[in-house]
Amino acid sequence: MRTLEEKILNEGQVFEGNVLKVSSFLNQQLDTAFLKEMGAEIARLYGDCGVNKILTVEASGIAIAIAAAFIMNVPVVFAKKGKAKNLSDKTYSAEVKSFTKGVVNTISVDREYITSEDKLLIIDDFLADGNALRGLLSIAKDAGAKVIGTAVAIEKGFQGGGDALRNEGVRVESLAIVDEMTDSGIKFRQQN
Amino acid sequence: MRTLEEKILNEGQVFEGNVLKVSSFLNQQLDTAFLKEMGAEIARLYGDCGVNKILTVEASGIAIAIAAAFIMNVPVVFAKKGKAKNLSDKTYSAEVKSFTKGVVNTISVDREYITSEDKLLIIDDFLADGNALRGLLSIAKDAGAKVIGTAVAIEKGFQGGGDALRNEGVRVESLAIVDEMTDSGIKFRQQN
Repeated sequence: MRTLEEKILNEGQVFEGNVLKVSSFLNQQLDTAFLKEMGAEIARLYGDCGVNKILTVEASGIAIAIAAAFIMNVPVVFAKKGKAKNLSDKTYSAEVKSFTKGVVNTISVDREYITSEDKLLIIDDFLADGNALRGLLSIAKDAGAKVIGTAVAIEKGFQGGGDALRNEGVRVESLAIVDEMTDSGIKFRQQN
Repeated sequence: MRTLEEKILNEGQVFEGNVLKVSSFLNQQLDTAFLKEMGAEIARLYGDCGVNKILTVEASGIAIAIAAAFIMNVPVVFAKKGKAKNLSDKTYSAEVKSFTKGVVNTISVDREYITSEDKLLIIDDFLADGNALRGLLSIAKDAGAKVIGTAVAIEKGFQGGGDALRNEGVRVESLAIVDEMTDSGIKFRQQN
């Protein structure tokens, strides 16, 4: 998605440890008009695939998941981190290591919100090592749901998580793939 | 908002410790069509007030904030809990006790995303004791931003947080106010 690549070039900041900060439009401040564009692109990619529900994980995934869901007219289910009073004991859970926080979180979805009837599109904001997507895929599998595919805004291609999933047969659509990220600049993977 | 009251009556579950679970449409599964309705109602309430930005807090606040922002055509900024690699050291922060998780979180917003030029609408999903809204109000104050008002989906009126804020002159709009919540039923406050 050319407009996303331009936004990353214009507003993204690269920090030590392969951290790409895009908080001006995706991770803390949300550019509403641009979020709609990203949602529309995901809806275009998966519009005719029979998706009946979008699965994501709190917190940054929620925004882009909703942007797509508003166009695809499907509900969103988001996995929660940790344990809250309003989450039942009957959950599907997975362990996920956060790249940006450096901690392992248990993510959970109440069993009643994903079933074997579901045809899921899994959405997240970032794809680095692929841990979050793998956690969500594991939850979908535990629920017996079908996964139509996955979509993320930004894939850090050089970390390999996306290609590993593709090699395993998972459909991974990334609106932008960063293949190189150094002090001298950011290089994107060519996509059709 | 009558439709929200009906949804709470139909789908809400009351648990020990004054917990109202509405995870089927607001807190874990997001009913996309209904989210749009709630966003439209917030946009109607604050549409002519000069709001230029919506401030919320991760995670559950993000969905309803975006629903309103999509109609009001303003960006959303969400405060983060804890500390991530992609959050700068230059933040406005506040301590917030979570009612449903029973823990105290530091919530933070990067200073560059809220300024003294901003006219904020603060949005959250729930209002109980008012701790989250107070944290966000404190962050807005530290940034020198003007707060036009606040909006939440569900206020638990019997916990008093909303009325305390109203008494202090804060505009608080709640799409539904639960004034009583017992095994025998839920009673809503009459609103115009």
